[in-house]
Amino acid sequence: MTIPPWQQLAETKRQAILSAIPEKWRLKDPIPSPAEQRDVTGAYIEQFLTPREIEITEADAIGILAHTTTGKWTAVEVTEAFCHRAALAHQLVNCLHEIFFTTALETARRLDAHFAKHSRPLGPLHGLPISLKDQFHIPGVETTMGYVGWINTFQGTPNDGRNRTSQSQLVTDLLASGAILYVKTSVPMTLMCGETINNIITYTSNPKNRLLSSGGSSGGEGALIALRGSPAGFGTDIGGSIRIPAVFNGLFGIRPSSGRIPYQGAANSMDGQSTILSVVGPLARSAGDLMVLFKAVLRRAPWLTDPLVLEIPWRGDVERETRELVRGMPGRLAFGIMWDDGAVVPHPPIQRAMKIVEETVRELGHTLVKWTPPSHQTAAKLAMRVYDLDGGADIRHHLALSGETPAAQVILEAEGTPQKTALEVAALNVEKREYQKLYMDYWNSTAQLTGTGRSVEAVIYPCAPHAAVIPTQFATVGYTSVINVLDYTSVAIPVTHVDKNIDLVRGQGRPLSDVDLKVHYDYDPNVYDGAPAGVQLFGRRLQEEKILVLAEYLAGKVKEATANKIVVGPEL
Amino acid sequence: MTIPPWQQLAETKRQAILSAIPEKWRLKDPIPSPAEQRDVTGAYIEQFLTPREIEITEADAIGILAHTTTGKWTAVEVTEAFCHRAALAHQLVNCLHEIFFTTALETARRLDAHFAKHSRPLGPLHGLPISLKDQFHIPGVETTMGYVGWINTFQGTPNDGRNRTSQSQLVTDLLASGAILYVKTSVPMTLMCGETINNIITYTSNPKNRLLSSGGSSGGEGALIALRGSPAGFGTDIGGSIRIPAVFNGLFGIRPSSGRIPYQGAANSMDGQSTILSVVGPLARSAGDLMVLFKAVLRRAPWLTDPLVLEIPWRGDVERETRELVRGMPGRLAFGIMWDDGAVVPHPPIQRAMKIVEETVRELGHTLVKWTPPSHQTAAKLAMRVYDLDGGADIRHHLALSGETPAAQVILEAEGTPQKTALEVAALNVEKREYQKLYMDYWNSTAQLTGTGRSVEAVIYPCAPHAAVIPTQFATVGYTSVINVLDYTSVAIPVTHVDKNIDLVRGQGRPLSDVDLKVHYDYDPNVYDGAPAGVQLFGRRLQEEKILVLAEYLAGKVKEATANKIVVGPEL
Repeated sequence: MTIPPWQQLAETKRQAILSAIPEKWRLKDPIPSPAEQRDVTGAYIEQFLTPREIEITEADAIGILAHTTTGKWTAVEVTEAFCHRAALAHQLVNCLHEIFFTTALETARRLDAHFAKHSRPLGPLHGLPISLKDQFHIPGVETTMGYVGWINTFQGTPNDGRNRTSQSQLVTDLLASGAILYVKTSVPMTLMCGETINNIITYTSNPKNRLLSSGGSSGGEGALIALRGSPAGFGTDIGGSIRIPAVFNGLFGIRPSSGRIPYQGAANSMDGQSTILSVVGPLARSAGDLMVLFKAVLRRAPWLTDPLVLEIPWRGDVERETRELVRGMPGRLAFGIMWDDGAVVPHPPIQRAMKIVEETVRELGHTLVKWTPPSHQTAAKLAMRVYDLDGGADIRHHLALSGETPAAQVILEAEGTPQKTALEVAALNVEKREYQKLYMDYWNSTAQLTGTGRSVEAVIYPCAPHAAVIPTQFATVGYTSVINVLDYTSVAIPVTHVDKNIDLVRGQGRPLSDVDLKVHYDYDPNVYDGAPAGVQLFGRRLQEEKILVLAEYLAGKVKEATANKIVVGPEL
Repeated sequence: MTIPPWQQLAETKRQAILSAIPEKWRLKDPIPSPAEQRDVTGAYIEQFLTPREIEITEADAIGILAHTTTGKWTAVEVTEAFCHRAALAHQLVNCLHEIFFTTALETARRLDAHFAKHSRPLGPLHGLPISLKDQFHIPGVETTMGYVGWINTFQGTPNDGRNRTSQSQLVTDLLASGAILYVKTSVPMTLMCGETINNIITYTSNPKNRLLSSGGSSGGEGALIALRGSPAGFGTDIGGSIRIPAVFNGLFGIRPSSGRIPYQGAANSMDGQSTILSVVGPLARSAGDLMVLFKAVLRRAPWLTDPLVLEIPWRGDVERETRELVRGMPGRLAFGIMWDDGAVVPHPPIQRAMKIVEETVRELGHTLVKWTPPSHQTAAKLAMRVYDLDGGADIRHHLALSGETPAAQVILEAEGTPQKTALEVAALNVEKREYQKLYMDYWNSTAQLTGTGRSVEAVIYPCAPHAAVIPTQFATVGYTSVINVLDYTSVAIPVTHVDKNIDLVRGQGRPLSDVDLKVHYDYDPNVYDGAPAGVQLFGRRLQEEKILVLAEYLAGKVKEATANKIVVGPEL
């Protein structure tokens, strides 16, 4: 048997994805170029939908569940509407790896039958379509993770009985909770990239501005949810891969600490590298939606089925205490704020997003503490060394399976880079722990500065130095990877959009680094115009309940403030 | 400066330890040989104590705290009594590395002053002397961890400002809780040994039978507490190092899952090896005492000061629910029972200890499930590979600092054994996770067998194939290391003592392995006579609250049963 060249394999797979879209949902006319039609969200995509489909797909997860768990909407009609919209989304921005609408509709019919029979939902996610990043295995569905060499294999191994039969634990838990799975979303080959590009679906563009990136590595999730082709989905994050696509697409996304959401039975890069664990977390349109998904998964007691999950159920007491704190008198909270990572000054729109949040917190009467922790650069450099522990061996192996050319954006160690030794791995583990210790001591020390009797609750910080980025210009994961080194909880929050009339290019004094120089040079307000811009709000380790409540609170107040036209201009 | 030969360094240190014992507490006459006087506990050691000292030191931790936290006993008199008894213990069995009675008495005086002033204790451990394994740093005190090359250094580094100034987090937490630190206990060089031997204190013998070992690596703790030279102490466990000395000395000891008790700032072997983390846990005379210590440490919120500690406070609800379960109707619980590890059949006294527990459980009407999990040998072999990840480099380095000769018992990889690579470390992490997953699936499956509606609560299993062992004959950590691979909670429980008239040598059919053959051959009822024999009760990950309550319950019932002279003989 001759193995077809990788280009042919990729092309066949690309066509197979498109062919999985029912004829009736295929776009008949060529779509306008990105230059002609940057924004394909909202009215643009809705031209192809019925009013009923629009009503359903514009609802958020909480809104959908309010209808599906009470029998007001059937699972079938909700599923059909999202299948249709996801199909359109893929044709507009290349965001899907796998489409399995038939299976999804079968699931939906079973759920409707369940409801008809028992007059109650199957579980807390009854009838909610959920998209999954293409790392999760679902029976009947392939997993390529963006590698051409994984097509028709199980994670690169041909003739493996687990191909299209394996089921990741998260899939089990979601299905048992009543969710409907219907698509798997695009990722960059290797997963180690802040944009989403591979030789199968090519490039996943940003739906708000197709001249830009949807982010990575959970870029397909970001793009699909931004287009309302999914109400919510799950991605993974080892250096920012949930938070980057979240802010690039105007969404919320949580990178929980490791040990809360099951990773068991999912594909991964460099599996077994345990110095910095990749984690699973949801992306959605609101912090409330993230909470619904988080709670539903924890209700399944994943610590009984995933050895890496901790027995920490959803802590309703922490949620309640935090809600009381934010409902209480102004000035009862203290937030840290940190404007840059010491290496790259963020672009004007990100600075403006930070200022909007800062002003909102100030207006609410809360304390702002200038955050001066142990160097984030130390952590960013440590993370880069962790990502390269094996000298790129795992990635090279999977690229070599097909011989495909890696995308330019994928960071690859030079051929022949040596692996680290067990002693070097151990030394890195110690270095990480010592950094974590310094950081927690610093955090504890802020109790002296807040006036609340407690240390800072959470820290406001950019997710990246730029908004949804111009392709090939993703600069650094340093803003996000520090959180992975610390294993802290961080929630990405959408704040605003780039406005070429406000977010002007301006001088910033002496560059902090060569990367700073390049990032500054790369900023082009005309191209970035319309791109979502957000920040992250991070808390200490395993603080998901608290940080989600704070993110919901702050994002709500930011929305009120911006709706009231408190415009923060470049003069601030 | 010429560096003295290691023998001289070791001798000087050995004398310095003895010199730290006040003249008045030194034994004037030579003690009888082990053959003449095997057992130096109880009446033997008490001949050197006053009735008041005996009254104090015979009390357990709960009993002492009942007096010291209410002002009935002063911290000073309690401290003096334990200092005296610990000094005697060391002279009898070589169980101390560091003696700092003067500092201890200063602490005690401050505590008494605090109580006099405020009429309440400083914290939950007010006035309780606690011994620590010689891995924890205390200002003013050295840490050698059994290495001659660490004398006058900080963990082997000379002229390091941290020598005698560093303070481990557990030390901070214990002192802040009102505990009194006064001694550090002996360990085998490298810590990787089931006996306690090093070139400084030589050999730590078993106080119940000085022909035998006190176990390891927390052997000094085991011996000291057995002699009531300490009411309770903290050890560490990466392969059995808490549980082995606990059962060898007729004590309770808990190996908690990783992430509960702070290890921050303590010395260790192969620091940074994270595939199997060493953990800290208490040893004491009862499960109740273990609970008191565990709760006191968690009250300090160690997750705010140790990056590896999880934010899981003591779960009083789990403790209460478990107490209700054991108080309820008989037959409401199900225990797994597993008689051997598939490689080595335990000696007759360990089989008898198992039978005593089995009979007790049966008499109580609970269900016993024959435990047939994924092979424990797989885990034991995996653990051995983890301990050797660096090819012995760390251990060799610390031995080479002084050029000392390693003890025969210390397992050392052959010189020049290569380190593992980052990819091999990652593969081992995956292998471990997959074993954990198989094991948890098996555990879940037992819900079909128990009749309780739940899976098995805990499993009864030997801690070692022998009772407190004949020196150089410690055979295998396979019985304990499986728990470290699983990261499960396990509590060592004392059950009985070897009785040469009951625990006769007997044939056992075809040997399971070469080690089995040797262990069988090594059994000598006459030498073992009087040695403590116990078992472990293990539960799933992070089940400390539950397993401690179950251990307290079962051990209490075993004690009742044996007091009622239900003798289990070899005929059973």
